Amino acid sequence: MPFQPTDYLPYDFANRRHIGPSPDEMADMLNVVGVDSLDQLIGETMPEAIRQQAPLSFGKALSERQMLRRMREVADKNKVLTSLIGMGYHGTVTPPAIQRNILENPAWYTAYTPYQPEISQGRLEALLNYQTMVSDLTGLEIANASLLDEATAAAEAMTMAQRVAKSKATAFFVDENCHPQNIAVMQTRAAPLGIEVIVGAPEDLEADKVFGAIFQYPGTYGHVRDFTAQMDALHEAKAAGIVIADPMALVLLKEPGAMGADIAVGSTQRFGVPLGYGGPHAAYMACRDSFKRAMPGRIVGVSVDARGNRAYRLALQTREQHIRREKATSNVCTAQALLAVMASMYAVFHGPNGLKAIAQRIHRKAVRLVQGLEEAGFKIEPETFFDTVTVEVGPLQQAVLKSAVDEGINLRPVGTTKVGITLDEAAVPETIEAVWRAFGITRADDRPGDWRLPDNALRETTILDHKIFHMNRAETEMMRYMRRLADRDLALDRAMIPLGSCTMKLNAAAEMNPISWPEFTDIHPFVPSDQAEGYHEMIADLSSKLCDITGYDDFSMQPNSGAQGEYAGLLTIAAYHRANGQGHRNVCLIPTSAHGTNPASANMVGWKVVPVKSMENGDIDLNDFLAKATEHSANLAGCMITYPSTHGVFEESVKEVCAITHEHGGQVYIDGANLNAMVGLSRPGDLGGDVSHLNLHKTFAIPHGGGGPGMGPIGVKSHLVPHLPGHPETGGEQGPVSAAPYGSASILAISWAYCLMMGGEGLTQATRVAILSGNYIAKRLEGAYDVLFKGPSGRVAHECIIDTRPFADSAGITVDDIAKRLMDCGFHAPTMSWPVAGTLMVEPTESETKAELDRFCDAMLAIREEIRDVEEGRIDAENNPLKNAPHTVEDLVGDWDRPYGREQGCYPPGAFRVDKYWAPVNRVDNVYGDRHLVCTCPPMEDYADAAE
Amino acid sequence: MPFQPTDYLPYDFANRRHIGPSPDEMADMLNVVGVDSLDQLIGETMPEAIRQQAPLSFGKALSERQMLRRMREVADKNKVLTSLIGMGYHGTVTPPAIQRNILENPAWYTAYTPYQPEISQGRLEALLNYQTMVSDLTGLEIANASLLDEATAAAEAMTMAQRVAKSKATAFFVDENCHPQNIAVMQTRAAPLGIEVIVGAPEDLEADKVFGAIFQYPGTYGHVRDFTAQMDALHEAKAAGIVIADPMALVLLKEPGAMGADIAVGSTQRFGVPLGYGGPHAAYMACRDSFKRAMPGRIVGVSVDARGNRAYRLALQTREQHIRREKATSNVCTAQALLAVMASMYAVFHGPNGLKAIAQRIHRKAVRLVQGLEEAGFKIEPETFFDTVTVEVGPLQQAVLKSAVDEGINLRPVGTTKVGITLDEAAVPETIEAVWRAFGITRADDRPGDWRLPDNALRETTILDHKIFHMNRAETEMMRYMRRLADRDLALDRAMIPLGSCTMKLNAAAEMNPISWPEFTDIHPFVPSDQAEGYHEMIADLSSKLCDITGYDDFSMQPNSGAQGEYAGLLTIAAYHRANGQGHRNVCLIPTSAHGTNPASANMVGWKVVPVKSMENGDIDLNDFLAKATEHSANLAGCMITYPSTHGVFEESVKEVCAITHEHGGQVYIDGANLNAMVGLSRPGDLGGDVSHLNLHKTFAIPHGGGGPGMGPIGVKSHLVPHLPGHPETGGEQGPVSAAPYGSASILAISWAYCLMMGGEGLTQATRVAILSGNYIAKRLEGAYDVLFKGPSGRVAHECIIDTRPFADSAGITVDDIAKRLMDCGFHAPTMSWPVAGTLMVEPTESETKAELDRFCDAMLAIREEIRDVEEGRIDAENNPLKNAPHTVEDLVGDWDRPYGREQGCYPPGAFRVDKYWAPVNRVDNVYGDRHLVCTCPPMEDYADAAE
Repeated sequence: MPFQPTDYLPYDFANRRHIGPSPDEMADMLNVVGVDSLDQLIGETMPEAIRQQAPLSFGKALSERQMLRRMREVADKNKVLTSLIGMGYHGTVTPPAIQRNILENPAWYTAYTPYQPEISQGRLEALLNYQTMVSDLTGLEIANASLLDEATAAAEAMTMAQRVAKSKATAFFVDENCHPQNIAVMQTRAAPLGIEVIVGAPEDLEADKVFGAIFQYPGTYGHVRDFTAQMDALHEAKAAGIVIADPMALVLLKEPGAMGADIAVGSTQRFGVPLGYGGPHAAYMACRDSFKRAMPGRIVGVSVDARGNRAYRLALQTREQHIRREKATSNVCTAQALLAVMASMYAVFHGPNGLKAIAQRIHRKAVRLVQGLEEAGFKIEPETFFDTVTVEVGPLQQAVLKSAVDEGINLRPVGTTKVGITLDEAAVPETIEAVWRAFGITRADDRPGDWRLPDNALRETTILDHKIFHMNRAETEMMRYMRRLADRDLALDRAMIPLGSCTMKLNAAAEMNPISWPEFTDIHPFVPSDQAEGYHEMIADLSSKLCDITGYDDFSMQPNSGAQGEYAGLLTIAAYHRANGQGHRNVCLIPTSAHGTNPASANMVGWKVVPVKSMENGDIDLNDFLAKATEHSANLAGCMITYPSTHGVFEESVKEVCAITHEHGGQVYIDGANLNAMVGLSRPGDLGGDVSHLNLHKTFAIPHGGGGPGMGPIGVKSHLVPHLPGHPETGGEQGPVSAAPYGSASILAISWAYCLMMGGEGLTQATRVAILSGNYIAKRLEGAYDVLFKGPSGRVAHECIIDTRPFADSAGITVDDIAKRLMDCGFHAPTMSWPVAGTLMVEPTESETKAELDRFCDAMLAIREEIRDVEEGRIDAENNPLKNAPHTVEDLVGDWDRPYGREQGCYPPGAFRVDKYWAPVNRVDNVYGDRHLVCTCPPMEDYADAAE
Repeated sequence: MPFQPTDYLPYDFANRRHIGPSPDEMADMLNVVGVDSLDQLIGETMPEAIRQQAPLSFGKALSERQMLRRMREVADKNKVLTSLIGMGYHGTVTPPAIQRNILENPAWYTAYTPYQPEISQGRLEALLNYQTMVSDLTGLEIANASLLDEATAAAEAMTMAQRVAKSKATAFFVDENCHPQNIAVMQTRAAPLGIEVIVGAPEDLEADKVFGAIFQYPGTYGHVRDFTAQMDALHEAKAAGIVIADPMALVLLKEPGAMGADIAVGSTQRFGVPLGYGGPHAAYMACRDSFKRAMPGRIVGVSVDARGNRAYRLALQTREQHIRREKATSNVCTAQALLAVMASMYAVFHGPNGLKAIAQRIHRKAVRLVQGLEEAGFKIEPETFFDTVTVEVGPLQQAVLKSAVDEGINLRPVGTTKVGITLDEAAVPETIEAVWRAFGITRADDRPGDWRLPDNALRETTILDHKIFHMNRAETEMMRYMRRLADRDLALDRAMIPLGSCTMKLNAAAEMNPISWPEFTDIHPFVPSDQAEGYHEMIADLSSKLCDITGYDDFSMQPNSGAQGEYAGLLTIAAYHRANGQGHRNVCLIPTSAHGTNPASANMVGWKVVPVKSMENGDIDLNDFLAKATEHSANLAGCMITYPSTHGVFEESVKEVCAITHEHGGQVYIDGANLNAMVGLSRPGDLGGDVSHLNLHKTFAIPHGGGGPGMGPIGVKSHLVPHLPGHPETGGEQGPVSAAPYGSASILAISWAYCLMMGGEGLTQATRVAILSGNYIAKRLEGAYDVLFKGPSGRVAHECIIDTRPFADSAGITVDDIAKRLMDCGFHAPTMSWPVAGTLMVEPTESETKAELDRFCDAMLAIREEIRDVEEGRIDAENNPLKNAPHTVEDLVGDWDRPYGREQGCYPPGAFRVDKYWAPVNRVDNVYGDRHLVCTCPPMEDYADAAE
């Protein structure tokens, strides 16, 4: 009998696993939308003129297994040595319980940024622990919930210092002992802002010539200096003082606050976060209380809920770029939440005694190593140190480095005659002996070592006094703590998160798997190139696929967030103009509908933002665009547009916009935030874009991690390639924008895995289904809600904006009420009040099943009826299910004096019955929290008060 | 300044991570218990006479990192080849989402057996899916929730056939096409039961001479036979027919039910469960409806809860060994729940079309391979096949096998002139080409293959029609389904599970980590020995550590459950007696307090169980023991005792019991279920034991997996070593008890990791703290509850029995009511009604913190007050928090006409507030479920009825 094979492809990742709607479901959806086929819908949605000509050409999709095999091949090309290079990156011991229960747990890594506090209490608590830890270690009152990396945090601190210092000086002093990448990133940042960077020895600081100064502690060559005198001098001159401090060193050393520092920054990588060839890791920032409103990034604060119970939420959000827009001087809008959570859990795991023991062990290992070297006659600097020293080896530098590599150890070349060594938590006695052998020492005495920390820089205060750092540290208890926190949050592993512009799609287990492999995690970002060949192969292949997808000619993987990508893209354009003798060009046209990061990024490169009007349908006003371009023709640096627009529409005029810009000498920046509506169908490079950033955490399956990590690589046309960011370690004409040459390199594996398993066809189909899902929701909500900004055929793109503004007048119901009511239905709210205040922007992505889309639509339709009840006077305008949302178990247990039943309150359409998600707190009072800012764990008496 | 190191050891796994109470907490606990030190407590608890002389001697404890490095060394000594050996073990593709969300998720692997259905609805649903899948594939109405492995399932089927068949014959026919280990395990099992095993070709069956017959389908050499004729003949003779069927083959082939089979068994390993050098995997068993009460193992059934909502629970529990005791003919008391869940999810993931596609792909690969071999002139058997063939190679057998190994492929030697090849899901085109090369074929044509399945054995019925197998198969949906199920259950990752005799201790993430490594998962159990050197090194080292711990001289790792270990131990004793010409010895003394598996195991080796009385204090009645031993002296085979006793007491008389037994020619079996109270303090081998089984899933940190896997290796004194179980693949004088030589080998890594990280000192301290925790609970509950069976100093061992019988009279409150009320407090109930009906046996283990112990005690004390309210008439005897427990959210939402408040009902002392666990169903009606047995997923109309 001949074969009659089934036509079912069991290992088809794209269509069986990644894309949510099954073929049958898609047919139903097309029917509702009112088209015969997906092709027809795409035809009606996307103007023919902007469609790409050829399908994506990169190879066949791999199955999960094939992908993992390919990934393994590449991983095996990385060589895992022990890196004692230091420079802000250290070996660390990730507690396996944290790795399993946080890093490898979808409940943590699929969560969104905690903008909706009621359903984010778990990670808000973890981040508050992080802030408390940072505040304690640095001795400064206020800490944020993390920044991208140490170097960008230093650059942020520099610009923050300029904002807060009363000094009118325009120069900034940088300690020459800062890690080279920190200096370089600050220089990159300073240049377009007109800040003069003075690099020098700490003792040469002339405080009255600068608005601020920054020092590394311990210094990159190991020196441990007390900067109290410098801080005093700076304050005398009304300038601000910043310390970049290693948090592990701070366990033993005098804290920056005690020296008088105004701001402290640093990396918490060595608190249990793997190296990952550069990231992702969480950088921290702390400052005096008086500067809190100038601090970039997110701050978790303590507030109360509607029942008066303690609740956490993001504080001081009005400082953020999306509010300040044109006035913003920082474009920071994400954090490294997942890594900050890991670092905070590491501190909880070890507590103050554990951290002290670890820091002491590190120091003792360094002392032992140094004694052996000294006994052999080597000259070591400095005399006193924490974990880092440099050894004078004269002409033998290369020989020692090579000999160390042969022993399995990477050391750091310093200058041409020295070798740097940094010990860490992961080093074992054999590590030290291997280093000795690299220096030709076969046997060293092991006499008891003396403390080599400088007496005048020892810490005199306690750390981590809060009870959370004194909890029982048995793994049983820690595991349950991590589970309890995870259970408080609603993440993608339980429900759709239909966040417009954020593309919360599936983060498949197979994609996440490789980021736990030692061949990816245990590589220092500055290892010799031949040890990272696997990374290079992966990066090259991912770049080439992204080029195919975007129509660009090359990619830089350095920017480690979307906003960072924007900034890097504009820097690239600016460098191009300079190279062409057009350095004066400094006007940037930005539509008023743009994301707030756009103007913020333009400000950061020193450009003048000229807003371009939007028309009523949300499109760019082409006449205004032409007028502004013409007006600023001589100085036009470029324009920043988003495609499809932030309103979720494929504007027909995009090519004209690009042409006008080019005509007037400008370059076109196309924001890639909405690329999920284009992959395989249209390429920004073909539309006229010169540069775009891609959000790998939106379009390419990197999870949002509860608010980071992200990756924002930029693609450019060939004329811009020479002007892409460089790096002190890898070269390049331009300065770096991030601490590591390839940003958060390890998570590139996720996007690469995604591309490999989807293939060109799968990626294209994903785009088509994302558009179908967006239109399906728009159609199902038709009649109940107005959908703003449809295209000419009445279609939206991959997201739709639902107008909820009329209900404020008709019923006193705000978009906030609807968002909170959706929690009762088991949903994270769509994007609120952006791009239009008072609206909801819904983006379902291609990964959601029809059942889940229907559950959402059912919920939204029922909410509309509840609004109607208010409108028509059937229920009280203040005491109704919308105003009282989210409903909690506390509501059920308590007295229920409401004009609607418990059943209606708690089980609106959409809510699961047995598996219902219950918000752990009632509605959170934001105003209270901002008025009474507490951004570290509240003192214990408070806990006693709140205890049952 | 000289070092002043902290005395805190941050990487001390035993004291910082594994043991729950911190040093401060322990001090408080000792205080409550009323002793000055742990030493004093142990002195009062454990008679000096039974203490071991020397501390455990095996090396220093390793840190997590050191252990993982050591584990990596060992893993690297295993060679991962592609095994096409077949014999019931196949390459498979574990979907990464299942691996991450089930196998690597503590919510699944730390769960206990679902005896308390209200807090086990998630895994009960998954196991019901499993039963439905098995029932569908085999075409038989009733399926159980898994057995240990295919070979033991075959042996169980044999004895079940004897129970159900009306034939009086004592012989049993075994198809010579069964896998060798299946035949061998059946022979082992048959011998002591007096069953004559006739091995022959299916066509030689003489049905009237046997009570049953078993056939392998497809056969071990690849033959696919229709056994309808044999089944007819057997039924004619009132005998029972059994088919061992590969579930993957059943996707395409005629199901055993359609042939008329009465029972079907097999392994579901190839449904996504890794090879693991032999296990763990889930075997299945299915039977006709009329035989359901004779079926061994657990059966999940459908019932209703107190609100009439559907609820799942274990059905027909009265069949089980713990109830039937002396009458039991099977000692099966565990399953392979975690692996059954994985296999069921694999079926859900792929659905019928996916499975069909996979099965067809396997067959097509086999056809392609065979065509190449045939073209080259090789003689292949059989003509028609599914995935397995044998190739005649004459004298070249060894050369071909070796050449295959050089190509990275393991083939199977069959006889001395043939080679067996079995294709599987994981094989790729390169695999086939490599096999060809091993046969000297460099290039084979790739002409389209014809179906080579026999036309008369094709399946004519559909499979997996139930809607659960037709759910949307996007990973997003599957991930959420697995999360929803997990969230319904209360496992160790959320709360203490104080199960007496079950030792639910921490399963540390670091211990679980290695079982995901390919070097452990991807090894076929019958690979050439040199490919499993890592396994052998691990097994040898673990054995030597267990010898040190127990005082035995050698271990067999073959038994893959505790009951299996008992059985193997008794077989070893029986073989020893036979070897000494004492084969007539067949009397086994067993105290009445013994676990039900003891008499069941004794029955299985054909022994006569003679019960020995217990005294009022729970100790063995020494006079009775002596009397019975004397009475049966001539025929005394041995005794089976548990130490410390099942009552949780260290009996002083244990050495005397052993001496008496030896004096009368018997051997002593000491049940190792309570070894957690002895490790490092006392050794069964020193007490007089000749053999013991250890529950690695109790004492040595293997998680309970929601009801398996377990491991029950046996330790023996040197005189018994030659009589340990052998195996067809590895030799040995005795027959095997399990399908694989080392049982569920892969999870031995967990116990080894545990031993490595604890070290001798840590293990001993764990024991001491387990005893402290047991006594702490006993002390705290003093006054409120009577604690039964204390030792002479008023101490218990590591567990305590709480007498709840008085409340039945005083208040009509049963032990069940208390167990359900504990769910409201967020606890899994202690062991109920065992060893004494109407009591609770509490075993906190060393891993729980004092806070968790206190939470439990607070809950128990509050429950006592609630009972008092009934006793003293303050609340209705039928309508009170105990009778209505567990309380659910449905209770809160519904009308509350109860004489106590919602607050009291739902938040009794002990319950978490924000993080409360809510049982998803109210109290389950067991009687209803047994009266209306449904053990497959209910039909869709039922779902529609139950839908909201």
